[in-house]
Formats: sequence, structure tokens, C-alpha cells
Amino acid sequence: MASALDFYFDFSSPYGYFASTRINEMAQKHNRRVDWHPFSGEAFKPSTSGTSLVQNPAKRTYIERDYIRSAKFHNIEFKIPSVFPLDTRYASRAVMWAESKYGEDKGIALAQAIFKAYYVEDKNIGDPKTIIDLGVSVGLKAEEVSEGMNNSFTKEQVRAEIDLATAKGVFGSPFVIFDGEPFWGFDRFDQLEAALKAKA
Amino acid sequence: MASALDFYFDFSSPYGYFASTRINEMAQKHNRRVDWHPFSGEAFKPSTSGTSLVQNPAKRTYIERDYIRSAKFHNIEFKIPSVFPLDTRYASRAVMWAESKYGEDKGIALAQAIFKAYYVEDKNIGDPKTIIDLGVSVGLKAEEVSEGMNNSFTKEQVRAEIDLATAKGVFGSPFVIFDGEPFWGFDRFDQLEAALKAKA
Repeated sequence: MASALDFYFDFSSPYGYFASTRINEMAQKHNRRVDWHPFSGEAFKPSTSGTSLVQNPAKRTYIERDYIRSAKFHNIEFKIPSVFPLDTRYASRAVMWAESKYGEDKGIALAQAIFKAYYVEDKNIGDPKTIIDLGVSVGLKAEEVSEGMNNSFTKEQVRAEIDLATAKGVFGSPFVIFDGEPFWGFDRFDQLEAALKAKA
Repeated sequence: MASALDFYFDFSSPYGYFASTRINEMAQKHNRRVDWHPFSGEAFKPSTSGTSLVQNPAKRTYIERDYIRSAKFHNIEFKIPSVFPLDTRYASRAVMWAESKYGEDKGIALAQAIFKAYYVEDKNIGDPKTIIDLGVSVGLKAEEVSEGMNNSFTKEQVRAEIDLATAKGVFGSPFVIFDGEPFWGFDRFDQLEAALKAKA
């Protein structure tokens, strides 16, 4: 069977959201599956450009403008959330728990619901109550989501996934690994698609 | 007359080189001129991602891979120079001097020769002798280039250009400003072209 694409993303990354609206469709076109790997922003911060945005107001201003222009260019519904960035630990854990318990498709459905809630409906996805409601919206039970995203097994799994991804060279969001080849950024989806075609 | 595109670049930036191979052709298609603004890497370092590449080996490895893959994807002749990055002050000054003395076209010709020497022929463009030779190759006199890139007026002009660009929000290479709209990165050339079309 053809290998899956590994899709790493941070819910606090608009470019990760943009990627999430396209990755499954693109992979499907080339008969590939996608494994979704959510990350909490906290885990990524030391190794990404987290500090440079704060240190550099010109860059910060530019990036916000780029989010809006890129969304429009690619025809993706988007607005900059009122609270941004925020703590995405609960979101990541809930998705990982849903994947473990109910399979990849359920995890993806929850991840897509979280992205939409944050970048289209401006909901506070840092609040665990929002995550529970979103779990219910994709057919999960409220108490189960609450327990799942708080249990120590899930926390351990999130940490292990981050260690594994770091070992694979993942350092930002979105990040895709396809047959060992890394692609960082939504703006490399053209090159990712070329690679998918070349190996079809 | 339609306004020109302002094109900011650092000779030490491969993405700046990629942009330099396309910008004039793209602008011409939409009846625009391009003003080329070279920068020395030293001037940019404090405000760009200069430090993060050093701090993060995974990112550094990725970026080198991305240079090669992106060049191939866009069909641009390229190899990673033996000495990289290097001091681009002489290159920047020589181009600015040539523009001031002989006009934009001569400056662009020299800049293109420098980019090619560095990223195709693997010449050490940090060495002022290389810059003088390249000046001669585009029809300038050796002594004149040598004097021009070392005189205090040129140095002052380079500093003033950097201050002006910083005030306009330029923080990386390549960077294009078109009618007040900023575009950072060769991977925003699709959006730049869309903007050129929209204002044709």
C-alpha cells in the first residue's frame, strides 16, 4: 500500500489552517491517505520563529496582512481571531485522543471542526468547554472528550508525538513529510503536489 | 506614468537570487519598471531570521534542501556556494554606485552578474576583486568600480537606503513593494503577479 502523508500542524498557525483545507483533497487525488498530527503551540515555540515576530513589529504587521491576503488568494474563508495566538493544548490532546479511540477519520473531523471554529467563527478554542462542544458536534460524548483530553495517557502521547516529530526534523506549521521528503509551509504545496505526481 | 516596483534583495539570499531571475520579466509583462535595491546581509541580520537558522539545525538542513528543490521546481540554474553566507557589502556598494553613476540598467546588469557569479559559477563575491572583475564584464572600468565602491558617498548612500527601507517595513529578502503593498519571499510572486494584473 502507498505510504501516507504525515501532516503536522499547530492550531495557532493560520498557515496550518490553510493547509488543513486542502491536504486531504490533494492526497486523495493521488491515492494517498493523510495522517494528521496536531501540536500544541507551546511545544513548538522554542524552535520556530516564535520570538522573531515579537522582536520585529514590521514582520508582525506584514504577517497579519499576509494571512488575510493569502486566504483571499486561495479562496479560503478566514478572519484573524480575536484571541491570537492562544493555548492549543486541549485542542491537540482532544484530537489525539479521538484518533486513538475512534480512528483517524474521527480525529480529522474534530481537527477540522476546531480549525473552523477558530478561524471562521472566532470561537475561543483555548477554552476546554469549546473543545468539548466541538467534540459533541462531530458525534462524541461530552464526558468522554473531557476525560480523554485530561487523562495522563493522552498527555504522554502528545509529548511522545512531539519528540518523534522533532526527531524527524519537524520545526514549524504546517509541515508535511511524504516518503521522507519534508515540505514546510502552505506555500510549498505546489512542490508537494509535484512530488505526489512524480511518485504516482 | 505607472509606478515602479521596489525590489529589495540581499546577495546572500538564494531566494533573493531566484526572485532576481524573474522580477524584470514579470514587471515588463504588466508594463512596470523595477527599481533594484541591494542590501548587505550585515544590515539585515538583526531583524530577520538570521539567528534562528543557527539555533535550529533541523531548520538549517531543511532550508538547504529547499533551496535546491525550489531552484529545480522553478527551473533556475543554482548550486549552493562553497562560501555561504558571506559579506556582501562590496557587492551592494558597487551596484548602488553603478546605478547612481550610470543609471538603473547598469546597476541591474551588475547585480545580475553578481548573482550569477555566486549561485551558478561559485565565485567568492565577498572578495572586492571579484566585484571589480564583474564590473568590467558589464562594461565598467576597473579603477572606477574600485573607487566607487569604497568612497564615503557610496557607503553613506547604502546606509541611507537601509534606513529608508526599514522605515517602509522591509525586513527580509526578497521583498517587493508595489503601490504600497508589501510582498515578502519568492513564494509570494504568485500573489504579486495577481496584484500586477489587478492594477493593469
